[in-house]
Amino acid sequence: MSLSEFALIGRYLQTLAASADGVALGIGDDCALLRVPDGQQLAISVATLVAAVHFPPDTPPDKLARRALNACVSDLAAMGAEPRWLTLALTLPRADESWIAAFASALGDELEGFGMALVGGDTTRGPLSLTLQVHGVIPVGQALCRHGAKVGDAIYVTGTLGDAMAGLDQLQHQPSPDGALLARFYHPQARVAVGLALRGLASAAIDISDGLAADLGHILARSGVGATLQLDRLPLSQPLRRHYTAEQALQFALTGGEDFELCFTVPAPSEPALALALQGLGVAFTRIGAIEAQAGLRARDADGQRVNLSTAGYQHFE
Amino acid sequence: MSLSEFALIGRYLQTLAASADGVALGIGDDCALLRVPDGQQLAISVATLVAAVHFPPDTPPDKLARRALNACVSDLAAMGAEPRWLTLALTLPRADESWIAAFASALGDELEGFGMALVGGDTTRGPLSLTLQVHGVIPVGQALCRHGAKVGDAIYVTGTLGDAMAGLDQLQHQPSPDGALLARFYHPQARVAVGLALRGLASAAIDISDGLAADLGHILARSGVGATLQLDRLPLSQPLRRHYTAEQALQFALTGGEDFELCFTVPAPSEPALALALQGLGVAFTRIGAIEAQAGLRARDADGQRVNLSTAGYQHFE
Repeated sequence: MSLSEFALIGRYLQTLAASADGVALGIGDDCALLRVPDGQQLAISVATLVAAVHFPPDTPPDKLARRALNACVSDLAAMGAEPRWLTLALTLPRADESWIAAFASALGDELEGFGMALVGGDTTRGPLSLTLQVHGVIPVGQALCRHGAKVGDAIYVTGTLGDAMAGLDQLQHQPSPDGALLARFYHPQARVAVGLALRGLASAAIDISDGLAADLGHILARSGVGATLQLDRLPLSQPLRRHYTAEQALQFALTGGEDFELCFTVPAPSEPALALALQGLGVAFTRIGAIEAQAGLRARDADGQRVNLSTAGYQHFE
Repeated sequence: MSLSEFALIGRYLQTLAASADGVALGIGDDCALLRVPDGQQLAISVATLVAAVHFPPDTPPDKLARRALNACVSDLAAMGAEPRWLTLALTLPRADESWIAAFASALGDELEGFGMALVGGDTTRGPLSLTLQVHGVIPVGQALCRHGAKVGDAIYVTGTLGDAMAGLDQLQHQPSPDGALLARFYHPQARVAVGLALRGLASAAIDISDGLAADLGHILARSGVGATLQLDRLPLSQPLRRHYTAEQALQFALTGGEDFELCFTVPAPSEPALALALQGLGVAFTRIGAIEAQAGLRARDADGQRVNLSTAGYQHFE
């Protein structure tokens, strides 16, 4: 295949390079030139998705685009940053115009939804993979980091947990997978509005990409604290409860990755303000436990009895 | 191979995350947080290198690191930007610690030389490839773009041309390749100091990644002008002249990619200031032609006779 075919693909993606806030010079020169507003910081995150490692090679291109972008923007949400710009390095085995058309169309929809613009990238020939870098802005001092959780803070999560892993399980093992669970796997929703609302309220935040136990574990380790979860308070969706036993559902909720919900900690005096800040965003949020001085992650059941987390399906792998 | 092996590789690269200008928060949270100085813009460029497409799979890792970083930083140089930060998405078929050690060591040397820090990235399993994104800063309004060349401007290039392609030719066809040419292929030097010195002097600039004719062609197309080159003035190195016929050397100089020299245009009144600005940088610079109103790229020989560029090895592929 010729270089010019790849140039064509590149031009296809350039249609996504809509003018957007802060783009002084977009695609087409040696560099893009971007303006970060005075008094704000740039927040960036990069991720690579490799076919057959991170997604089945035959994943429909529109689903791949939506999932990849939301997974990356989720990191901006977890930081409390406002999404601005995307760069996309796309490696394709061949210049398949129908594939790229579907991919670009879905990516364009998602970018528009986030108010983002594609500002640069590279299109190359090779085994199918994508590297996305997202760029956001945030006022100095307002970023939600992992290291700020304090003893006594309440632990919250958005949405429901375990659905994405259940969706993958349905996809792999059920002849008629549940549509709602499948949608949670294919089309996660980065919680940008929640992240913005948490500025000045949350003491620490992370997005759930590796599972609640692992990701909350990062906050605990960075903050030098521990926590106890109340397992009966973990938010589980109706489809999850319907298709799986209580034990399976709990395991998905604790260890299922890629829900891309936010897990965050809030000092007790800020909890009333939190409820006000998040109301009207259309995203559920649930208090699931508390930060404690004793290191490590523990759990209690509805009766207040201690539960061994490893028997609940959680393997410690810090 | 386990996830933890890849986590180990990631930690290896984290040793390159030295504190650097403008890094408010480096590797280890959902995002890196970076500060662009007030009154400056962010310049970014991203490139992917795929094994067996852009480099032989057995390329020594130190050479791969040096070449990849310089190729990317060259885009910052062509913009007149000051290099600051790197993100690296590295996909490896296996967690080979000696490979990563050599790669990280060479990358660290180069980053230190540019005053850059690694601020983020991703390490994944899959077919060998690298995606680098470089980030620089530049005062608002001082970027060197491709669209500013004007009729009457002089055309300059840095260094010598065609050496990288000759180096690759030596590598592929000579039992005892010429060391100087090989070094130009394996270890290009991004012309950062020249790019900074050109701020306020050059009307347009680009780095030579696809060959002089193609890259100068981008300036011409973007600026809506044409040009005539004086072929006898193209700077050719001694090793290039020694190993190749005059005709072959000229073809390499016109079409050889990956020299990563800068090609730039300067208004005639600024040429004395240019000489002052570039003196002492240790980089040769040569006036090779002039911008004209008539679209397209033409050439003359030492006697002032017109030369057909396609017979000189240049295939137009805009």
